[in-house]
Amino acid sequence: MPTYNAPVEDMLFLYEKLRDNKNYNEIDKYKEVTTDLVKNILDEAAKINQNLILPLAKAGDENPTVLENGVVRTPPGYKEAYKKFIEDGWTSLSCDPKYGGQGMPKTVSAFFDEMLSSASLAFKLYSELTLGAYNCIHHHATDEIKNKYLPKMVEGKWSGTMCLTEPVCGTDLGLLKTKAVEQSDGTYKITGQKIFITSGDHDLTENIIHLVIARASDSPNGTKGISLFLVPKFIVKEDGSIDTRNGISTGSIETKMGIKGSATCVLNFDEAKGYMIGPKNKGLSQMFTMMNLERIVVGIQGLGISEIAYQNSLIYAKERKQGKSTKNQSPNGNADLIIEHADIRKTLLNMKSIIEGERALCFWLSQQTEVSLNHSDHKIKQDATDMVSLMTPVVKSLFSDLGMEITSDAMQIYGGYGYTKDQGIEQLYRDNRITPIYEGTNSVQAIDLVFRKLVNQNGDIIDKYISMIRGDLNKNNKDLSSFVAKLEIYIDKLSKFSTWMKDKIKTSKDDANAASNDYLRVLGYVAIGYSWLKVLEVSYKDYSNNKDFYEDKIQTANFYFNRVLPRVESHYLSATTGSKYIMDFKFN
Amino acid sequence: MPTYNAPVEDMLFLYEKLRDNKNYNEIDKYKEVTTDLVKNILDEAAKINQNLILPLAKAGDENPTVLENGVVRTPPGYKEAYKKFIEDGWTSLSCDPKYGGQGMPKTVSAFFDEMLSSASLAFKLYSELTLGAYNCIHHHATDEIKNKYLPKMVEGKWSGTMCLTEPVCGTDLGLLKTKAVEQSDGTYKITGQKIFITSGDHDLTENIIHLVIARASDSPNGTKGISLFLVPKFIVKEDGSIDTRNGISTGSIETKMGIKGSATCVLNFDEAKGYMIGPKNKGLSQMFTMMNLERIVVGIQGLGISEIAYQNSLIYAKERKQGKSTKNQSPNGNADLIIEHADIRKTLLNMKSIIEGERALCFWLSQQTEVSLNHSDHKIKQDATDMVSLMTPVVKSLFSDLGMEITSDAMQIYGGYGYTKDQGIEQLYRDNRITPIYEGTNSVQAIDLVFRKLVNQNGDIIDKYISMIRGDLNKNNKDLSSFVAKLEIYIDKLSKFSTWMKDKIKTSKDDANAASNDYLRVLGYVAIGYSWLKVLEVSYKDYSNNKDFYEDKIQTANFYFNRVLPRVESHYLSATTGSKYIMDFKFN
Repeated sequence: MPTYNAPVEDMLFLYEKLRDNKNYNEIDKYKEVTTDLVKNILDEAAKINQNLILPLAKAGDENPTVLENGVVRTPPGYKEAYKKFIEDGWTSLSCDPKYGGQGMPKTVSAFFDEMLSSASLAFKLYSELTLGAYNCIHHHATDEIKNKYLPKMVEGKWSGTMCLTEPVCGTDLGLLKTKAVEQSDGTYKITGQKIFITSGDHDLTENIIHLVIARASDSPNGTKGISLFLVPKFIVKEDGSIDTRNGISTGSIETKMGIKGSATCVLNFDEAKGYMIGPKNKGLSQMFTMMNLERIVVGIQGLGISEIAYQNSLIYAKERKQGKSTKNQSPNGNADLIIEHADIRKTLLNMKSIIEGERALCFWLSQQTEVSLNHSDHKIKQDATDMVSLMTPVVKSLFSDLGMEITSDAMQIYGGYGYTKDQGIEQLYRDNRITPIYEGTNSVQAIDLVFRKLVNQNGDIIDKYISMIRGDLNKNNKDLSSFVAKLEIYIDKLSKFSTWMKDKIKTSKDDANAASNDYLRVLGYVAIGYSWLKVLEVSYKDYSNNKDFYEDKIQTANFYFNRVLPRVESHYLSATTGSKYIMDFKFN
Repeated sequence: MPTYNAPVEDMLFLYEKLRDNKNYNEIDKYKEVTTDLVKNILDEAAKINQNLILPLAKAGDENPTVLENGVVRTPPGYKEAYKKFIEDGWTSLSCDPKYGGQGMPKTVSAFFDEMLSSASLAFKLYSELTLGAYNCIHHHATDEIKNKYLPKMVEGKWSGTMCLTEPVCGTDLGLLKTKAVEQSDGTYKITGQKIFITSGDHDLTENIIHLVIARASDSPNGTKGISLFLVPKFIVKEDGSIDTRNGISTGSIETKMGIKGSATCVLNFDEAKGYMIGPKNKGLSQMFTMMNLERIVVGIQGLGISEIAYQNSLIYAKERKQGKSTKNQSPNGNADLIIEHADIRKTLLNMKSIIEGERALCFWLSQQTEVSLNHSDHKIKQDATDMVSLMTPVVKSLFSDLGMEITSDAMQIYGGYGYTKDQGIEQLYRDNRITPIYEGTNSVQAIDLVFRKLVNQNGDIIDKYISMIRGDLNKNNKDLSSFVAKLEIYIDKLSKFSTWMKDKIKTSKDDANAASNDYLRVLGYVAIGYSWLKVLEVSYKDYSNNKDFYEDKIQTANFYFNRVLPRVESHYLSATTGSKYIMDFKFN
């Protein structure tokens, strides 16, 4: 079984030294979230993840969730762990104190998301979707609904789901068939089938609050006729207690490649009682409130799984002896630790430089997200929203894809042992493999980025982003100059690619579409490079206070700039060859 | 369950039009292997793979091989299928007619290897290792041994294994601990533990012939004291009939991520009777006779799994409707087939251009392999051997890695359905995941390429290879000129990278080591490009005889040159940054 040590030191470094967003620091309610408080939280978080949650990963993989006589049973140990998990208040970390939450900003809760992803992604999903549903209800529902449902969800006694996908519609929700028929009391009867519903049913909570998109009888076709409904597994009485079972049954659960402890359900809604949330026919945009935040969390999942893969690879590389390093002159059979081999070291540094860069980017994004949600100035809020929108598909896709690269490299370091179940390394790979798929496949993210996020009604967002990075390049700092010079090469490339892309969006949508995945990566690699630059700035400035830590940062960044950033080049060259030859191809 | 149609047309195209190696065509015994004969073989091969073998893939994944009371049981259906498989003579395809084989060249048997890999890799491994052992015995054993063991192996009644790995030694065989003690009758008693032994035990054959490397009592440490032994599961009497059980027991079988129908065994040798093969202390080089051929087959496995992943992705993309293409102006919810989307088309063409390029490269390599084994001229033979040596690690690593890319892309095309077990797509991904690991991890291949294959006692092999490609570039052919121009850019890059590498091998081994994986890919992408160029030459020349087929080839090649070849750029940029910063890094 893999071991795990939560990277608290790196997280606290970010929290203390890189909380540099002026607008974020103006948000009153977070002023009392001191580094000391965060340290306490992260120390406790580390304990529960390392001790209680981590063993659930293997348990869930070996004893997947099952559907027995219509009831979904989670793997052994899940119930007990979940009870402790909610008792200690971990579901409520980032929730509104008004409903019993602890009101922590995403700059803190994102660290917890990472740790929980490292420990057990399958277990995490049970509370993650609750928070998604919480966010959506919190944003869009009436006070009556909020008061009725949110406290129990924050407490973790009730969980939540997002019911979007149907057999014929995944990416393209306009095709949905689930119907909502209005009743005389203003409620709706919901009928239809939803598939791939994470935590759709299980035995961890007393009730499950489904957020369901459906089409009201008199609504138009396509995405413009979709409304959002709250549909509880058990009807909730006026006094908040649980009443009869609603018309929802679990048709089946999916047998999956990984995250086997997570119940992925087919849910059949048969005239289930539902309550409309927000205005009619605006369901999709409401659902996206939750989808967007959720997509960032999927990126963080990739980061968390990468971290535990890296940690275990490093441990193994320091234990396993095989082959001679270049320094070994011994003529007999003595072998060196594999960490002495350049290629293994390169692979480990590749992991580390990506992981720490991602974590820094994520921290930057968490500050932006909080500004977008909580700043008092509308313009500042809007600008932050645009940055978050731009980076959401990038973080979701790039981190999940790089999670595949890193878990795969971990398997390679383990060799044959990595392919067997005993070590638990191949499980990391299988568990992470859902992240490039769910919450919108990575290709869908790339298309969303290119066609909806680069330029919007507020202007040329990508241009603002590039200008912001350029503005932040500290060219007079001699320590940084070689890094700045390297990053500039790729910022220029990103800029050129962006201009090309904006032109193609107008003149040849297929060119833009075919180039979108490459473009997303180019933007992502530059964004991580930019985050590294911020880390470097602090590292040189504060060097004497923590020499070993900062030296490690500087050398890790150096690897990123030397060996990871140049990936931009091939993406750019390949993507800008157009698409005519692709569109003309006859697939016989 | 995935469907499969063997790509017989493409294979016959290669066999008929690209059998262009003059030296190969001089080998007498293959002159009667006409295209018609090969067509008959491939048609039959397609049938057995599509109908009999393909269903075994799912059966084996759902009912893995088990060890019960010391006996290994293969999955349901394996026994019956194996019986038919050997009755129809498929194990004997490429074997020497002297021992009952059909004497087909690798230019034919490699196609069969590909088909069988597409249909079920786990099932394939039972006969594949037999052929590995066959080759090794055929090359190195005495006539007595050959006459005693080979006919039954060729017939498929007995199978074979390669027993190399031990708990402490995988890559580094010099560390092996298995002992061989000579007996008065000239036989040896073998004692030790071997792990990760593919087909180490099973119920498909009457006997299993293990080829075991071990250290004789008086042999030196390290790789120079390794000898090779034939150790049968059951002792074979003088008359060829089966006698008592030898001292070999199955300790356990591995629970793996994929290829679950294949028995991966821990074998305990306890004074098992063994017969030395070839000269004492030369066991490693003898084993490598079989390892090298086997490594090419691992590359072909990656190709085969890629092919079936592509075929099913294409089918799905033509059935699944989701989202609107850029041509769709319909304002209501109508969706298009996903094959209308540029990004999906790009992904499919990426797969296809890699697969067909790999197949062409493989066909080129099969001819070289036959020349290296069977040509009458020593110098020609040696030159071919050098080319095969150079390309072996490239084919093994690049094809297996690209197999991961392609099966992963297939999952993305299937979306959520790709992650569930029902479709069988995720199984392709898991099954292929062993290919970058076994027969030497891909990093080990890269190091082998760089330190042993570029330059050897026969001269500068990589230089000969590059000169050969350059010599073949038909610059006066107008049809080809744009392709030639693109390939030249990357040949130049390969040449520059090779010069850098040869210098670093002398001056900084760590630089070379850290760059080796990138170098392997650069060489591989150029080699596939070169193979495409040969395909293109025929396609233009013969265009009017099969317009649709050749147009498809030309357009697919065009994709490869536009979108795949540019990957070279980033590998080169990243790899040539040296390794000092990597070697100096403190992994605390």
